Amino acid sequence: MKVINENTLYIVGAGPGNPELLTIKAYKTIEKAQVILYDNLVNKELLDIAPESCIKYYVGKHPYGDYVSQDNINDLIAFYCERYERVVRLKGGDPYLFGRGFEEWAVAKRLGVQVEYIPGISSMQGAGWNNIPLTHRNVAEGVWILTGMKKDGSLSSDLALAAQSSATVVIYMGMRKLAEIARNYVMYGKGDLPAAIIQHATLPQQKSVVCQVQDLLKTSEQHGLGHPAIIVIGEVVNLQYALTLAAMKQDVV
Amino acid sequence: MKVINENTLYIVGAGPGNPELLTIKAYKTIEKAQVILYDNLVNKELLDIAPESCIKYYVGKHPYGDYVSQDNINDLIAFYCERYERVVRLKGGDPYLFGRGFEEWAVAKRLGVQVEYIPGISSMQGAGWNNIPLTHRNVAEGVWILTGMKKDGSLSSDLALAAQSSATVVIYMGMRKLAEIARNYVMYGKGDLPAAIIQHATLPQQKSVVCQVQDLLKTSEQHGLGHPAIIVIGEVVNLQYALTLAAMKQDVV
Repeated sequence: MKVINENTLYIVGAGPGNPELLTIKAYKTIEKAQVILYDNLVNKELLDIAPESCIKYYVGKHPYGDYVSQDNINDLIAFYCERYERVVRLKGGDPYLFGRGFEEWAVAKRLGVQVEYIPGISSMQGAGWNNIPLTHRNVAEGVWILTGMKKDGSLSSDLALAAQSSATVVIYMGMRKLAEIARNYVMYGKGDLPAAIIQHATLPQQKSVVCQVQDLLKTSEQHGLGHPAIIVIGEVVNLQYALTLAAMKQDVV
Repeated sequence: MKVINENTLYIVGAGPGNPELLTIKAYKTIEKAQVILYDNLVNKELLDIAPESCIKYYVGKHPYGDYVSQDNINDLIAFYCERYERVVRLKGGDPYLFGRGFEEWAVAKRLGVQVEYIPGISSMQGAGWNNIPLTHRNVAEGVWILTGMKKDGSLSSDLALAAQSSATVVIYMGMRKLAEIARNYVMYGKGDLPAAIIQHATLPQQKSVVCQVQDLLKTSEQHGLGHPAIIVIGEVVNLQYALTLAAMKQDVV
């Protein structure tokens, strides 16, 4: 492989939205960036951390609309990495959790450019912001994270396995698959499992609803929820109410 | 429920180890803490962020040794939350991902104390630090996170479902279950799937090895790996080599 130079591509997670959920390492990296290529879901406030002279390039992909293709993004990464020492690829959530960050790692590696990965808080952790823990002893001993949008547009067949498990299931980019998701659970006799949709997790405009998994589509429509949102399915969704109720009973006694 | 006061319990994720992987929000919270109850896996450097006057109380649980029991920790949380306005419960990784943080949420709620959850980078994201993405298009469209240590000491039966899926499987606290994990994959004809053990992810003393899942125990022993470590199983483990090789071939042509 050709080693072009000592330039570095920083593949940085911007977190779920709240600007204070950025890591210190990411902050320091943005502070010194010469170029930032940033996504649709990145909080724009984070761009103010960068120096005045920094080139800020929007390469956002809207999930169902116009977009800069991944090939274009890869070309832009190559272009800037050949010319600048510190190029930041800033992505919503974590770059290696449905973020396609590793495709960009490969682009940089092919050029012989250094890569540094800086993880980000993933939007599923926004569930905790809504008093929904992803795991809880004796309730859910694991978490299964799926995407509702595979490359070919299909829902992962793994959802059938997930529905049979005792794991909390988290679905990213699943808002167009709500009916299918519900059907899958109903098929395994689990239509009444609690589910939550959390839109814009950790941001002031956050919206979240709780329902039974079989009512996901109806509930989403009633509340006008849309992308970007995560779907959380499992007993952990209702745990906050169960524990609060238990505490109230204790007080009465 | 009794509302005692305006005190707040901050349930804070300290991240996987590297102190710069703390979030800005966590940093600001520790900076103002009056009391910090911290875990074994929390990087002790983070305690220096707190004011001189802050009470720093170690409540670490060593996974297989002496420990402060969760009941004791809950009592300590109650004790301090009744007396101080800003009590920080600082936990390695993310508090709601195998962190038992929500049990502590319930303690505070029972007391009528406010709770604020601040997520942390989870140690599985340390895989990216080793050039292992948790997801990658057409390679792994999901991640299944399990614990090797259920309350009753058993390995989750979900691992049988996980082994049949196309998800990347991440196992926390699984170092005493390596033989069982391997057996489970062999049973599904997947003994040759690539696996990695990553100990002390993101810290200077980090150690990681890659092997076939059927060789997990032998490899771990040969390299003297132990707790705390995560186990990552799936094609994503070898992706860095596959992509580097592909790039080299491209150069030759």
